[in-house]
Amino acid sequence: MKDLKQEILAMVEDDLAAIEEALEKNLNPYLDLVSEVARHILFSGGKRIRPLLMVLSARLCGYEGDYDKTFSIIFEYLHTATLLHDDLVDGASVRRGKPVAHSIWGNSVSILVGDFLVARSLSICAKTERMKIVEVIAEATEKMCQGEIRQLMHKGSLNLSEEEYMEVIRHKTAILFQGACRVSAIIADASKEKEKAVSGYGYNLGLAFQMVDDLLDYTSETTVLGKEIGADLKEGKLTLPVIYSLKAAGLKDRDLMEKIIKNRNFSVNDFETLIELLEKYGGISYTQQLAAQHIEKAKKALSIFRPSETKEILLKVADYVLNRKA
Amino acid sequence: MKDLKQEILAMVEDDLAAIEEALEKNLNPYLDLVSEVARHILFSGGKRIRPLLMVLSARLCGYEGDYDKTFSIIFEYLHTATLLHDDLVDGASVRRGKPVAHSIWGNSVSILVGDFLVARSLSICAKTERMKIVEVIAEATEKMCQGEIRQLMHKGSLNLSEEEYMEVIRHKTAILFQGACRVSAIIADASKEKEKAVSGYGYNLGLAFQMVDDLLDYTSETTVLGKEIGADLKEGKLTLPVIYSLKAAGLKDRDLMEKIIKNRNFSVNDFETLIELLEKYGGISYTQQLAAQHIEKAKKALSIFRPSETKEILLKVADYVLNRKA
Repeated sequence: MKDLKQEILAMVEDDLAAIEEALEKNLNPYLDLVSEVARHILFSGGKRIRPLLMVLSARLCGYEGDYDKTFSIIFEYLHTATLLHDDLVDGASVRRGKPVAHSIWGNSVSILVGDFLVARSLSICAKTERMKIVEVIAEATEKMCQGEIRQLMHKGSLNLSEEEYMEVIRHKTAILFQGACRVSAIIADASKEKEKAVSGYGYNLGLAFQMVDDLLDYTSETTVLGKEIGADLKEGKLTLPVIYSLKAAGLKDRDLMEKIIKNRNFSVNDFETLIELLEKYGGISYTQQLAAQHIEKAKKALSIFRPSETKEILLKVADYVLNRKA
Repeated sequence: MKDLKQEILAMVEDDLAAIEEALEKNLNPYLDLVSEVARHILFSGGKRIRPLLMVLSARLCGYEGDYDKTFSIIFEYLHTATLLHDDLVDGASVRRGKPVAHSIWGNSVSILVGDFLVARSLSICAKTERMKIVEVIAEATEKMCQGEIRQLMHKGSLNLSEEEYMEVIRHKTAILFQGACRVSAIIADASKEKEKAVSGYGYNLGLAFQMVDDLLDYTSETTVLGKEIGADLKEGKLTLPVIYSLKAAGLKDRDLMEKIIKNRNFSVNDFETLIELLEKYGGISYTQQLAAQHIEKAKKALSIFRPSETKEILLKVADYVLNRKA
């Protein structure tokens, strides 16, 4: 898996460098505090998958202009704003191995810098001069908020259904991935068919991405993941591996799982017991399979495009999303 | 003054009713929690001055379409989002005589519903199908955040200059008032001259509005204002009446004022002493005069328009902003 990551990184090296440059450039010349906080979270090892998807999809759709990198950062700024606010909402303490922004600068700064990044992405959005793009971004932003609010409302609930889970991740993650790809087709003046294809790719990739993210909370090592293991549960967030296993378990094991989940200060031993139960009742493998199905759908959506290096990278990215370890 | 308010209200009754309807309609059919929280703050006696300015300016600029009410609520949603986040940042407890949203639903809900209202206003903004409007809103949103961040950075500082104060209120208030008026000219396809005129009106009205708001913190009664008196000082916010008086005072009185300000749990007696000093050193009257100058500028900006009922209302609104008691 590490090889696949290195392989992709080598193929998109120039794009990533240009994205980093655009991320930096569009933060200046704002207030020092804003730049400092935004930099703390923006430049702490994010994968840049959203802007990268936009740049690659635009190329796939035949875009030849100079603005793809600039426009692509709309999605990273929006995502970063969400992280700043979510970390507050979740009461998180660590993100990507670093203390979260609000623990350094305080809640107020996190709220306001998050707001600023949304405003900044809207300003860049206005520069695209395409009303359709504003609509896509507006819808994605609105849906993201709804997803986060839904998630907050479900917090602590042990009766979350798979449908409700899917609704949350559709809103909070898939719509923005889809938006990044869709916007690329719009700036490329691509056909409706191509727009639909890259949208489908982004949407399914986003769903799989979030499922894998939720899986990693149970299967990864803290040092790799850069955040505390079991963090979702400690924040009262039920994700698919648990939802599925709770439903599949017999009364006795369900009771045991619920007891561990309800006690948010569960021990390492408790957590290991829980993981065993998630494996026993198939929650881990079910989530993996579902993610794999969406990755297949994502790849299939690109079948209308002729073979090219760009298409190859997007297919590799899909494989990487499914198999990443962090 | 009460007469002027009643007079204006009678003249804009139908407009206000239509604005209320649009505010309600565009919150549906969202999640119950979102609507509940948004309603708590949206429908708790706000003055609707921003959407009203847009509707009136649009009419003054000759707009005859049906969308002015819908588009006008962009500004009320944006403003309300700011209030939700600001109350958190300021640690406020009461707003318009009601407990603040975060004290009822918690900080997370306030953060996310604020985010949602920004997203919602962006979606309505996209419906205007005018890129110029998106630009104006994006810029206003960005500036508002910068204003709030500036204010936060200055918090607790006793050395704020008048220039820094003006910079804050320009960003946090005047730009949105200006934006509401400017957008009205754009949807009306008005001439550049008219756009500039209503922009100038909105901008100066916004500056005066904020100055009067800051004055009321020292001159109003809690029961009228709907929030705790002296709240700005308790939040560490220095505004013009204090800034001016601190500069004008002699060493001894300056010391006394600083002592009262630094102790954020000042007594009613301390606060009365402070107000006496603000009067003695002219901070109250200076702020009033400066606000009055901006109201004059606002009214003068409208001189290019022929007399009309709409123009008359806008002039009355300017007088009301200057002389309001809450």
